[in-house]
Amino acid sequence: MADTSAKRLIDSDKTGEPAPDIKRGKTDNENGREDGNESVQENVLSGFKTSSVLSDSAREKNIFIHGKVADQDAVVILEKTPIREDSLAELFSGSTLKLEMKNDIYSTYRLQAPPHLNEIKTTVVCPATEKHIKKYQRKESFLVEETEEDYKNITLPHILKQSFSVQWVYNILEKKAEAERIVYEDPDPDVGFVLLPDFKWDQKQVDDLYLIAIAHQRDIKSLRDLTSEHVPLLQNIFQKGKEAILQRYNLPASKLRVYLHYQPSYYHLHVHFTKLGYDVPGCGVERAHLIADVIQNLQSDPQYYKTRTLYFPLRADDGLLSKFKEAGRL
Amino acid sequence: MADTSAKRLIDSDKTGEPAPDIKRGKTDNENGREDGNESVQENVLSGFKTSSVLSDSAREKNIFIHGKVADQDAVVILEKTPIREDSLAELFSGSTLKLEMKNDIYSTYRLQAPPHLNEIKTTVVCPATEKHIKKYQRKESFLVEETEEDYKNITLPHILKQSFSVQWVYNILEKKAEAERIVYEDPDPDVGFVLLPDFKWDQKQVDDLYLIAIAHQRDIKSLRDLTSEHVPLLQNIFQKGKEAILQRYNLPASKLRVYLHYQPSYYHLHVHFTKLGYDVPGCGVERAHLIADVIQNLQSDPQYYKTRTLYFPLRADDGLLSKFKEAGRL
Repeated sequence: MADTSAKRLIDSDKTGEPAPDIKRGKTDNENGREDGNESVQENVLSGFKTSSVLSDSAREKNIFIHGKVADQDAVVILEKTPIREDSLAELFSGSTLKLEMKNDIYSTYRLQAPPHLNEIKTTVVCPATEKHIKKYQRKESFLVEETEEDYKNITLPHILKQSFSVQWVYNILEKKAEAERIVYEDPDPDVGFVLLPDFKWDQKQVDDLYLIAIAHQRDIKSLRDLTSEHVPLLQNIFQKGKEAILQRYNLPASKLRVYLHYQPSYYHLHVHFTKLGYDVPGCGVERAHLIADVIQNLQSDPQYYKTRTLYFPLRADDGLLSKFKEAGRL
Repeated sequence: MADTSAKRLIDSDKTGEPAPDIKRGKTDNENGREDGNESVQENVLSGFKTSSVLSDSAREKNIFIHGKVADQDAVVILEKTPIREDSLAELFSGSTLKLEMKNDIYSTYRLQAPPHLNEIKTTVVCPATEKHIKKYQRKESFLVEETEEDYKNITLPHILKQSFSVQWVYNILEKKAEAERIVYEDPDPDVGFVLLPDFKWDQKQVDDLYLIAIAHQRDIKSLRDLTSEHVPLLQNIFQKGKEAILQRYNLPASKLRVYLHYQPSYYHLHVHFTKLGYDVPGCGVERAHLIADVIQNLQSDPQYYKTRTLYFPLRADDGLLSKFKEAGRL
């Protein structure tokens, strides 16, 4: 299980997103009033000295900072909290408004809220190692152009040499792990698969629905291995996956985005089912391939994915990127 | 020019993103200390009564609310402000920390900041009409499956009947408008184009670079009209667009995501150039098509985009969606 999460975390690491993921530990009183059950600590950050901003996101209102707490290296993550409907009345009545601009029916203000209604989620890693600091550093990504020859000469040898373990996938397929999480299974060895929620989804609401279908077939590393002989497998995953999601979550196919990644996070065929409108990292055109397109392409050209030049982003610290650079392909 | 922005706004309306865009008017003292030059208003929102939440985003920390200000309909938009590096020292020294969890080197807190360091951007539209309220309402989107026949029988007649004006595009191509915004032009009538910044990009940093290339050819409505005869045009836009962006913004091709939309916002061929890693609405696999893939597909099958089933999201209020529903295709 530890292995599983480790492998899956790679998923969010490969997306080329500007800011790293934050594990969000929700509590009932998050952004709410203090309830007397918690201790007000001495402010351990009052003397915090910022060394550098590792990354930040103006869109998501978070910032990852490297600095020192009492001479120890630390990483501090700040993220503003979502605005809660149930705090609106108190927010409006208890805040100060400062007018910035008024034009006809439009006006803008800066609202200064009571601190307990407008908290900032703060995570401290201390002492932090070089590894922690690197983990939170914004990593640039580069778009790589991979021809049929590049795959054979660069990518495939890299995959084989790394021999990434997919034991955790086999554990799921053999019910040695996570059996209780399985939403649907077709046990057929050729076209069968297991459908289960992705770790990124807490299953509390369908707004951010995210499931993964893992094929029972073990010899398909990625999109590059697919030929027309795999069309029945892909069609089966697509069709039965949609049916299972309709039945379990009452979400019709017209609300789903169903796709494969290239490069994938792990080299065992799997398909992503996410809710349309949920802009999850990894659903961008530079990495995702709609399964419906994949099926059509293989039907009209059995060698489509073996012969095409494919494009995908790789992060600066990805070993595969070094291989492309060494080969003079970037 | 008014027409231009109106048309372009459709762009963000068609993405199927959960929350509508906010026009962000930045000021120098946003989220900063009050500087004495502004009036502290009577809190016009102190008696605000919420009727409904039109939409919200936990990721972006904003909320769009419909309610009443002194018996008048109003829309209020709240959005938390980005965390600024230059306010960190004061934030750390002046805040209260409440411990939530401590485990080994990891601890989490709720940070209560001085209000002037943690403002909420507030926009009020009052009185608001039914149209304003509709504009900010979260609109669900649905994935539509469009076969070759669906295009001929449903989509094409709808496009032709609507006869969407692209006069603003012709104004740009003829230098009657926005001539000063043009970054690059190839004037060739067959393979030429004009490259200019998208309105969504303020051009202040390349992190969110967004340019549009508009073809001089006027008879290509969308991806559906492309055949192998357009490959030279697409190659020219791709190649010269990349060169112009390298020269002007010092951003190499490996940092670019270059794609077409289907459905597009307006039916005159144009190509999107955005920075890789900037997850702009509309770059998702369900709507974007990499120009490099389009070129390859047309090279191997001249009729690829005329004959394929294409998938795209349509918002609930899109007239085209009604047509697909009427035809029993959803």
